[in-house]
Amino acid sequence: MAGKIRLPIVIVNFKTYAEATGKRAVELAKKAERVNHETGVSFGVAPQVADLASVAETVEIPVFAQHIDPIRPGGYTGHVLAESVEEAGAKGTLINHSEMQLKLSDIDEIINITREKGLLSVVCANNPTISMAAAALKPDLIAIEPPELIGSGIPVSKAKPEVVTGTVRLVRQVNTEVAILCGAGISRGEDVQAALRLGTQGVLVASGIVKAKDPYAIMLEFVEATGK
Amino acid sequence: MAGKIRLPIVIVNFKTYAEATGKRAVELAKKAERVNHETGVSFGVAPQVADLASVAETVEIPVFAQHIDPIRPGGYTGHVLAESVEEAGAKGTLINHSEMQLKLSDIDEIINITREKGLLSVVCANNPTISMAAAALKPDLIAIEPPELIGSGIPVSKAKPEVVTGTVRLVRQVNTEVAILCGAGISRGEDVQAALRLGTQGVLVASGIVKAKDPYAIMLEFVEATGK
Amino acid sequence: MAGKIRLPIVIVNFKTYAEATGKRAVELAKKAERVNHETGVSFGVAPQVADLASVAETVEIPVFAQHIDPIRPGGYTGHVLAESVEEAGAKGTLINHSEMQLKLSDIDEIINITREKGLLSVVCANNPTISMAAAALKPDLIAIEPPELIGSGIPVSKAKPEVVTGTVRLVRQVNTEVAILCGAGISRGEDVQAALRLGTQGVLVASGIVKAKDPYAIMLEFVEATGK
Amino acid sequence: MAGKIRLPIVIVNFKTYAEATGKRAVELAKKAERVNHETGVSFGVAPQVADLASVAETVEIPVFAQHIDPIRPGGYTGHVLAESVEEAGAKGTLINHSEMQLKLSDIDEIINITREKGLLSVVCANNPTISMAAAALKPDLIAIEPPELIGSGIPVSKAKPEVVTGTVRLVRQVNTEVAILCGAGISRGEDVQAALRLGTQGVLVASGIVKAKDPYAIMLEFVEATGK
Repeated sequence: MAGKIRLPIVIVNFKTYAEATGKRAVELAKKAERVNHETGVSFGVAPQVADLASVAETVEIPVFAQHIDPIRPGGYTGHVLAESVEEAGAKGTLINHSEMQLKLSDIDEIINITREKGLLSVVCANNPTISMAAAALKPDLIAIEPPELIGSGIPVSKAKPEVVTGTVRLVRQVNTEVAILCGAGISRGEDVQAALRLGTQGVLVASGIVKAKDPYAIMLEFVEATGK
Repeated sequence: MAGKIRLPIVIVNFKTYAEATGKRAVELAKKAERVNHETGVSFGVAPQVADLASVAETVEIPVFAQHIDPIRPGGYTGHVLAESVEEAGAKGTLINHSEMQLKLSDIDEIINITREKGLLSVVCANNPTISMAAAALKPDLIAIEPPELIGSGIPVSKAKPEVVTGTVRLVRQVNTEVAILCGAGISRGEDVQAALRLGTQGVLVASGIVKAKDPYAIMLEFVEATGK
Repeated sequence: MAGKIRLPIVIVNFKTYAEATGKRAVELAKKAERVNHETGVSFGVAPQVADLASVAETVEIPVFAQHIDPIRPGGYTGHVLAESVEEAGAKGTLINHSEMQLKLSDIDEIINITREKGLLSVVCANNPTISMAAAALKPDLIAIEPPELIGSGIPVSKAKPEVVTGTVRLVRQVNTEVAILCGAGISRGEDVQAALRLGTQGVLVASGIVKAKDPYAIMLEFVEATGK
Repeated sequence: MAGKIRLPIVIVNFKTYAEATGKRAVELAKKAERVNHETGVSFGVAPQVADLASVAETVEIPVFAQHIDPIRPGGYTGHVLAESVEEAGAKGTLINHSEMQLKLSDIDEIINITREKGLLSVVCANNPTISMAAAALKPDLIAIEPPELIGSGIPVSKAKPEVVTGTVRLVRQVNTEVAILCGAGISRGEDVQAALRLGTQGVLVASGIVKAKDPYAIMLEFVEATGK
C-alpha cells in the first residue's frame, strides 16, 4: 500500500444522502479537498457511482466508488464494472460496507480485480474476527465498523475501544501492511484522536460529516485531532 | 405513457460491455442519436451508471439507467438512488433485467419511485405469465426477454413467436396502456420487423448493436425494418 | 383450487419460533388438528422444514412448507427441494413470505413446480398491487400481509381494511379462482371475523397463535369468529 | 475439534439429488454407516433438511445439515434454524458451500452459533486465500473446493494439487487446529489417497458417491485409499 496514499487518511462515504447527491456531492468533495490542501492531512471521498465522474473531474484528492461488482467486462446489466469507475476517475473502492455486505468469495474476487487495475481496496468489516478474515485477502485498507454504531453518533473508539484494539491485534497477526481505519459513529475530533491512539491509521466517516451543519468545520476539527 | 416517448422505440442496453464503457459509451450513444435524428425513429440508450452523466450531456435522445435500487435518499452505501441518476440526466430506468432480477416487492417499489419522479420504467420479464404480473404493477414499458435467448443471436420473434404473442395477449388483459418491447437475440432488421408484426411497440437490444462491427449500420437496418 | 382444501381456512405459520420448533412443533400441530376435528373448520400448519416429517406423520390436517426453492433435483446444496418436502408429507408451501421475499421469476417457477406436483401454493404479498401481480401467476392461494403489521398484534383487517378490500378487488380482476387469505397482526376472533367480512377466505397467522399463552383457546376463538 | 470427530473423515453431501432424497437418503446413509462400522474409517452424511430427522434416527454416524441460517429463534419464515436441525439429530452443518455462498459476516455468525451449540462447523472455500480467511473465523473444519471442478469427476487433488497444498500452507499460518478436507471431483480411491498425501484430513464428496452405480463399493474404495 505504501506510496499509494498518505496516512493518516479521512475517507468520507457520501452514501445516498440527499446532502451528497449530484451537485451537492461535488460541493462536499471540494470542501474535503480544501481541508486536505490547507492542512496536508489526506482526505478521500466516496460519492455515488452516478457522481463519480463529476467529482473526480473537480477534485484532486482520491475518489472512491462505494462498491464495485465482482465482474469483468461482458453481458451484465445494472452492475458496477471496475473499468467504468476507473475511467470515471475513481482511484479505489469501498468493499463489503455494512450496508452492502458481500459473499466471501466476491470480496476475494473484487480485491483481485482492484489489484490488477491498481485501484485501492477498502474492505469494511463488522468485528475483529471478520477483520482478520478480511486481512487474509490482502486488501489495501480495512475499515472496522460495528454496524450497531453506524450513524449513531456514538464512536466505536469510545464505546467499544476493545473492538478497535482487538481488530488491530488480530489483523496484524496475518497482515502487517494493510492500513486500518476506524468507522462507525465518528463525528468529533476527539473520536478521530481516539481512533489513531488505538492504533488505526485513519477513519471512515459518513453522516458525521455529510449531515453536519458545517462539514468544512468538522473536517478541520478532525485534522486538528490528528495532531498534524 | 402517452407523450413521454414516441413509439416504436429501439432501446440499446450497453450492459457492461467494454465496447460501451466510458468514452466508448458516449460514442455509441452519439451513433444512436444520429440514426434517431436522421430517420425520426426513436432510440434510447442505457449506459452504465458511471457513464450516465457524460452520455446524457452529449445526446438528446432518452438515456436510461440499467437499474436503480428501491430506496429513498438516506444511509445506503453502494446503492443506486433514483435522484442520482435523474440528476445525471437519465429519463428512465430498466428494471428487473434478466441479469439483475429483483424481488417482486422491489419491482413494485421501484416503479412507485419512477412514477413519483416522472422517470420512465421499463420492466423486463422472462415469459408471458411474468409479463402479465409485471403489467399489473403499471410500468410504462415491459420488455419480454426469454433469458435463454439473450445474447444468442437467435431472435425470440423468430424462435418463439408464441412467447411474444402470448405476452401481448396476457399483458393486454390487465393493462391496455403499457408499451411492450421485444428483446433477446435481436440482431437484424427482420427481427425488428417480426417483433412489431407480432404486436410489440419496439425492441430492447444489447449485443446485437453493441458488439456489431458497425453499430450505426445495424441501427439503420433496424429503422428500415420499422417501415418508417 | 376447488376440492383441494376446504374454505375458510386458518393457516398457522410456525416461523422459527422456539415455541414451535421440534417436539413443540408437533404439539402445536396436534392442537390445530384437534380444533379442526372438533369444529370442522379447516386448519393448516407450516412448520420448519426439519419438522415437516414428524408433524406430517402425526396430524391429518394439511402441512405446508414455509418455503421451497425454484429448483429441480440436482446439484444444489442447502436448498429446499419440492420433492423432499413432498416426501416428508407436505401438501403445499408458503411462497414469498415477507421474511423470505423472492424474485418475481422465482415465484413463477415455484408455482409451476407446485402445480406439476399437485402441491398447494400460497403466495404472500405486501399490498394490493403486488397481490394482483401474484394473482396473474395463478397460485392456489394469496395471503395479503402488510409487512409493517406482521407480528404487531394490530390486525390489517382493522388498521387497514382498504388494503384487504383493495386486494380482493384487484385480484378478482385477473383471477376469479384464487383463494385470498388475510394476514399480519391477526390475534383475536374479531380479526378473523373482519377478514372474512372484507371478502377473504381465511387467515394466515403466526405469533398470534404460536406465542399465545393458550394456542388451543385462541384457535377456538378464531373458529367461533368464522360463524361456522 | 479434537474429540469431536475421528479423522480422517469422508463427508458425503447428498445435495438435492433425487438419488439421495427421502427414503433414498436413509438408504444411502445406512450404506455409509455400514462402511464406517466395517472399516473403522469415519463417515459423515449431509442430507437435505427435510430428511435430517429420518436419517439421524436411523444411523449413528454424524449427520450434517447442508446449511443453516445466521439466525436465533424468532420471527423468520423459511429459514433454517440451528435449533431445528439440532433437535432433528444433526451434529453439525456445512457452511458456505459453493452452491450456497454466504456473506462473510453471515459465515462468522453461523460459526458463532455452531460453537455455542456444540455443533460441528464445516466451512467450504473456493481457493487457498479464501480458505485462509475462513480459517481466521475458527471453524472446526474447512473444505477446499474449486467450484469449476465440483461435479466434474476431475479431482482437485490431481488437477490442481497446488490448490490443496496452498490451502494447507495458508490455513496453517492462522489456524493450527482446523481440520482440512479436500473436495470437488473426488470419485475414486486414488483421489482420496492424493488428498491425504497433500496434507488434508479427509474429503467432502457428493456426486462421486451419490450418483455412483454402487455407492457402497466406492465408499469401500475410499477407505482402502486411506490406508487404514
